Amino acid sequence: MYKFNEKEKRDNVNGALALRSQINRIVDSLWKKEIKNICWLGIGGTYASALQVVVHMKEMSELNCFAENAAEFNVTGNKQIGKGTVVIISSVTGTTQEIVEAVNNMHKAGAEVIGFIDEKNSVLAENVDYLICYKGQEQLKFYMVADRFMYNNKEFDLYDQFYKQLEEHLAEGLINVEKQADKFALEFAEKHHDDPIHYYVGSGNQWGEVYSYGMCYMEEMHWLRTKTITSADFFHGTLEIIERDTPVTVFIGEDSQRALSERVKNFLPRICANYSVIDSKDYAMEGIDSKFRGMISFMITHAVTNRIDAHMEKINCHPMEIRRYYRCLDY
Amino acid sequence: MYKFNEKEKRDNVNGALALRSQINRIVDSLWKKEIKNICWLGIGGTYASALQVVVHMKEMSELNCFAENAAEFNVTGNKQIGKGTVVIISSVTGTTQEIVEAVNNMHKAGAEVIGFIDEKNSVLAENVDYLICYKGQEQLKFYMVADRFMYNNKEFDLYDQFYKQLEEHLAEGLINVEKQADKFALEFAEKHHDDPIHYYVGSGNQWGEVYSYGMCYMEEMHWLRTKTITSADFFHGTLEIIERDTPVTVFIGEDSQRALSERVKNFLPRICANYSVIDSKDYAMEGIDSKFRGMISFMITHAVTNRIDAHMEKINCHPMEIRRYYRCLDY
Repeated sequence: MYKFNEKEKRDNVNGALALRSQINRIVDSLWKKEIKNICWLGIGGTYASALQVVVHMKEMSELNCFAENAAEFNVTGNKQIGKGTVVIISSVTGTTQEIVEAVNNMHKAGAEVIGFIDEKNSVLAENVDYLICYKGQEQLKFYMVADRFMYNNKEFDLYDQFYKQLEEHLAEGLINVEKQADKFALEFAEKHHDDPIHYYVGSGNQWGEVYSYGMCYMEEMHWLRTKTITSADFFHGTLEIIERDTPVTVFIGEDSQRALSERVKNFLPRICANYSVIDSKDYAMEGIDSKFRGMISFMITHAVTNRIDAHMEKINCHPMEIRRYYRCLDY
Repeated sequence: MYKFNEKEKRDNVNGALALRSQINRIVDSLWKKEIKNICWLGIGGTYASALQVVVHMKEMSELNCFAENAAEFNVTGNKQIGKGTVVIISSVTGTTQEIVEAVNNMHKAGAEVIGFIDEKNSVLAENVDYLICYKGQEQLKFYMVADRFMYNNKEFDLYDQFYKQLEEHLAEGLINVEKQADKFALEFAEKHHDDPIHYYVGSGNQWGEVYSYGMCYMEEMHWLRTKTITSADFFHGTLEIIERDTPVTVFIGEDSQRALSERVKNFLPRICANYSVIDSKDYAMEGIDSKFRGMISFMITHAVTNRIDAHMEKINCHPMEIRRYYRCLDY
């Protein structure tokens, strides 16, 4: 399969899952203090990941948690953030300027910061209170933190069973999703590699996935135009510009908001003949109970888009690493 | 001036401001109870208005407040909502199905609901705990509620002065903005009435404005394609697909997030020759202190887009009332 290193993928997922004991030591030590709220801090793609984990926590938890955009926080502030706030960040380079500034500001307000920083020799690695260095799997890392907080708050009885299944089956399951998705992904890339605009729709923990896929992958890496919209708001405006030939893709997960996206899927055939569905339910995940699938469905759809990316990049002769402006210009 | 009824506009703004005593009686009576948090509930355009008022409160207040999307709440829930939650909604028809269901669910959880319902013979008018019936000015109504809560919480010392100025000058000021903007708006409409896609960027209380303008006006009423993006996230993906001829419009307000949008404005000329700026600062607002302009800048830019809409509708021979699908089909 083109651009697919099975061993690397398996090792990366399992390596991320193996961070759990390190994560739990941090979360458990914070849990002994008085926690007022939990702030998932991000910008761009990491903000999208923050939105995903907030939906996950809203489903299950009474803990007060929210997503915060770093640049917006730096100018507007947030009086909810202070002593007793646990902040979680993720950064590949460890240098994202808005995050660096926000961490400083949050520290001044009295918050404590857990940082997943891929690059250990970086300003963010130095500045966070609790550092974990590991490459990739940002969303999974976030979920492990959230799940441990909810476990401590007696809101996740099946925590041990869930992670046992992930450790035994997740990596292999995701590899199989990529294999199963490859044919669809090639057809999708062949059909949509030159779309003038493509609409991506999703909800629940798929919304962060969709927001990030439109912006960080399609726009930033493939230089293709997208509009992303939640399944809820799709029916309050965006639907009006969908016609027979408009390219639309609905991401459907298996969490609490599945029905919102199914509504879009069921409506689309009446007005559009150029739509696609990426539904996590279409992909097996052997060894993982159906009751847990909602919590990992964003990883399943991401495995599907990994394959789209591989083919899209090849068809368009557009290496995903190149940027026109980002980190090429000062602004 | 085409499609411009000065008297109607003046009366509508002043009529909305005159709701304040009614609003204050409600807020003050709720204030005597124990308020846990404030939930701005919406969907589509009303969700956008909710986002605006949340930014406004974040700037000034320690009160715990958040925006909630009705459809998402109906399936995911929100364990923060219960006894002690004050919910605020707005609906023109009083029949928006997701809001009807969410209000029922929030009531079951123990929350109390203030409703701005334009149509008094409607299911929502019957179902809310505190009803105010008045046509239009949704955002201003929301701000009056927020401001009264913050006044009661001793976070808005200049409340009386601010509203005195609004009552004396806002209506006239907004009328003058429309007059001043008309030439720009005509040129904008002539240039952009057939754009294949137009990017709208904004932040702070302009973000709800931008989100709503792209979705509820351009997509829903003009059937024109848009992508909307926050000024913060613009630099984390979307910038890559902006080129010389890409139509981009930046909305700039005068609140705490002005600098984020100025950064976009300052960057654009280097990569784009087809951008526009709608900056509230370019419009006089006689009688209103500069320190208050941030709180009303979304009304100033909305007055500008009113004029764009008028000309766009005429040029495109596309009446803004018509819908292809919304409330025309069952879904």
